[in-house]
Amino acid sequence: MFFPKDVYCSRQAQLMAACGDGVICLFGNNESPFNYPANCYPFRQDSTFLYFTGLNLPGLVAVFDCQSGERTLFGDDISVEDVVWMGEQPSVAELAKASGFDKAQPLSALAACFAQMAGRTLHHMPLYRHDHRILLHELGVAFDKQQPSLVLIKAVVDMRAVKSTQEIDEIEKACAIGHEMHTTAMRLCQPGRTELEIAGTIAGIAAARGAGVSFQPILTMHGEIQHGAPTANALQAGRLMLCDSGAETLNHYCSDHTRTTPISGKFTTRQRDIYQAVVDAHDHAIAVARPGIKWRDVHLAAATIIAQRLKDVGLMRGNVDDAVAAGAHALFFPHGLGHMMGMDVHDMEGLGQRYVGFDDEVQPSTQFGLAALRCGRRLQEGWVMTDEPGIYFIPALIDDWRNRGLHKEFINYDLVETYRDFGGIRLEDDILITADGCRVLGPHIPYHVDEVEALLANR
Amino acid sequence: MFFPKDVYCSRQAQLMAACGDGVICLFGNNESPFNYPANCYPFRQDSTFLYFTGLNLPGLVAVFDCQSGERTLFGDDISVEDVVWMGEQPSVAELAKASGFDKAQPLSALAACFAQMAGRTLHHMPLYRHDHRILLHELGVAFDKQQPSLVLIKAVVDMRAVKSTQEIDEIEKACAIGHEMHTTAMRLCQPGRTELEIAGTIAGIAAARGAGVSFQPILTMHGEIQHGAPTANALQAGRLMLCDSGAETLNHYCSDHTRTTPISGKFTTRQRDIYQAVVDAHDHAIAVARPGIKWRDVHLAAATIIAQRLKDVGLMRGNVDDAVAAGAHALFFPHGLGHMMGMDVHDMEGLGQRYVGFDDEVQPSTQFGLAALRCGRRLQEGWVMTDEPGIYFIPALIDDWRNRGLHKEFINYDLVETYRDFGGIRLEDDILITADGCRVLGPHIPYHVDEVEALLANR
Repeated sequence: MFFPKDVYCSRQAQLMAACGDGVICLFGNNESPFNYPANCYPFRQDSTFLYFTGLNLPGLVAVFDCQSGERTLFGDDISVEDVVWMGEQPSVAELAKASGFDKAQPLSALAACFAQMAGRTLHHMPLYRHDHRILLHELGVAFDKQQPSLVLIKAVVDMRAVKSTQEIDEIEKACAIGHEMHTTAMRLCQPGRTELEIAGTIAGIAAARGAGVSFQPILTMHGEIQHGAPTANALQAGRLMLCDSGAETLNHYCSDHTRTTPISGKFTTRQRDIYQAVVDAHDHAIAVARPGIKWRDVHLAAATIIAQRLKDVGLMRGNVDDAVAAGAHALFFPHGLGHMMGMDVHDMEGLGQRYVGFDDEVQPSTQFGLAALRCGRRLQEGWVMTDEPGIYFIPALIDDWRNRGLHKEFINYDLVETYRDFGGIRLEDDILITADGCRVLGPHIPYHVDEVEALLANR
Repeated sequence: MFFPKDVYCSRQAQLMAACGDGVICLFGNNESPFNYPANCYPFRQDSTFLYFTGLNLPGLVAVFDCQSGERTLFGDDISVEDVVWMGEQPSVAELAKASGFDKAQPLSALAACFAQMAGRTLHHMPLYRHDHRILLHELGVAFDKQQPSLVLIKAVVDMRAVKSTQEIDEIEKACAIGHEMHTTAMRLCQPGRTELEIAGTIAGIAAARGAGVSFQPILTMHGEIQHGAPTANALQAGRLMLCDSGAETLNHYCSDHTRTTPISGKFTTRQRDIYQAVVDAHDHAIAVARPGIKWRDVHLAAATIIAQRLKDVGLMRGNVDDAVAAGAHALFFPHGLGHMMGMDVHDMEGLGQRYVGFDDEVQPSTQFGLAALRCGRRLQEGWVMTDEPGIYFIPALIDDWRNRGLHKEFINYDLVETYRDFGGIRLEDDILITADGCRVLGPHIPYHVDEVEALLANR
């Protein structure tokens, strides 16, 4: 386990106190089938379950009775025939003891446990694995009654959002793996190599140094596709390669970085102008992020820099502040500046962006672009955020906006047309909010124009 | 798509003819969530869906009406906002046309389709993804009524079992990736490197050259654990490293190889004796496998060689044929000699081993060891099988058998005790059953004692 037992005991107690009454049920993840029942994807424990128990094995359910304080771990021991296939495993009773539970029970006892708690409030998390939905259905909670507990979600968000020193050290380790992944990708970024070849190689680094990638690598000459999956296409001189990827450590803390590299080794003038705009937005966010400032305001400041630079090259026009207020920059920068990062690469996204990134003061927007901002509220010391501005030329979006006549006063569509084949640029680092500002986590991955071109010249 | 459209049309027609009446419903796989809904594992299409449609995208359902012959593809088109994230995608109507369907409909139309077919026989495959179970439940087929169609399963097995020339070429490509993975692992097999480091590196090769691994690599100093996952432990001089891993091509055909490598670079005498027994069993299977012979008999012949060699070194005793008939060798060789391989690494295992590997003539066994044989029936030309004998010293199994007094007349438990820390050895290649024998697929991966030691001496 990553932390000593008392850390988990204390977290469990804090969670029960926050929920007040009822029964908390945390479902640990099960194996997830790939192409048949016995051939599974790599096991990934649920992050919240791991945070509160430290147990990184499939087939476990934790039940915390907030009234009696009793903590029960449900799971099944393996047989001697299983030992032939899986090797010796700790018993569920041993796991329970190691993690501060009062007792262990087989999974078959869950039904009786649920029957006993009839009439009491059941607190569970949002269910994103379909096997958990079926299990809860079998335990008597119909599919349309499987509403997650808001009080539980809010308590978990409060606890997981602020990272401890040990958690930050672990994220730094993930960032060090990310450094190796990205500098390798940049060195391999040469005409003729395929996107898949490079993406596979860096996924191998993540698997060799930790638990693998924190998400499927985005690696593409079509950076304008936000989640562009690598293809078997060979890299072409003159284009840009966008690589957005990260690693998980063996303790399942994440990194998430993006670099955009000129395949020819040098930026063209047109590429450098757009690239430098993204660098400036990226660096400005680091300069201003600190506790108490709204992340939405950092996002809008980055958007304003991008709009100003796009105006400088003639792609936008008119008053920059008005353009950003109207959301005109979102044609080029249609996503948010960044998100929380921790045990999930979009930390706690599955708990509901509304509860993770917003509060009574700062509400989510419905404006295109700003609506994609995953966090808007005031930053707190100990949060880890990604800083990832970008500029893209998305043919389908350009056509759609132009046809609808959107923001004509701010956008020079005729010039935009000449950038249709440009692609996209994004730069991303992971920052820790400190007492009086922020700092970038992990070793420096080159991103300034000069250092990128120097790295590529010496590959 | 891997094949021209007419191949898929013809396969679909053949399947409808085999089922005779009713409606066939093939569920394509959906994205599978990793740690929250939007962060998914790499997409893997269901092999049967891919075999019959060639469509390698999530969110599709194929319905074939065996009476009218009408083929409908259900799926949803994406919006312009989706294009920003995913790029341009073919419409479902375009996909349907490319794959020989008569029409395309949105997923919301599935309910009406199921309502219309009320009273008719629904043929579907075994459901191993939980989202499919929930979908079928929502379509009115209760969980306890979700029985797969035996006639459909048998028709699919007959078609998928025999590989065409193009399929064999693709499996050869997967084996070539496997060759690079295994020779790399052997070169990296040095004291001080960790199991995870090597396993991650070869998984990276599989991802760089194809669609990734065909199953999570087994790479361990504890070869006696059949599915031993790699750990952060450093390799130790004197021990053996067992690596069982394979690749998928971009068209999702698999390879599956095992090599066992002495970490010091040379086998000890004791290791070589056991290793050579496995080599002999492996080579014998290749010498005798041909159409018409029962794979169970090939398995038993390999088991007999293993038992004889173990008798030669004093670990077994008594009449070798009697020992094998009694299953005494299964203390050391507790699994089957091999399985079918194709689009699934254990080809069609999810359809039911009973239907894939057995028939009226050859039934599955309940004897420990032989019961783990995944295929027993007569080999046919065009089948691809794995040939993977092994010898293991499994402390938990040794203790269990000795305590129960099993097969004392055939096993020299006192000598076995001195091998408790030996580990395990397995060798595995993929063979194609030809008209008059078999041939090993893919480039030769060194496994004879001399060539292994020569490779390790020059790493």
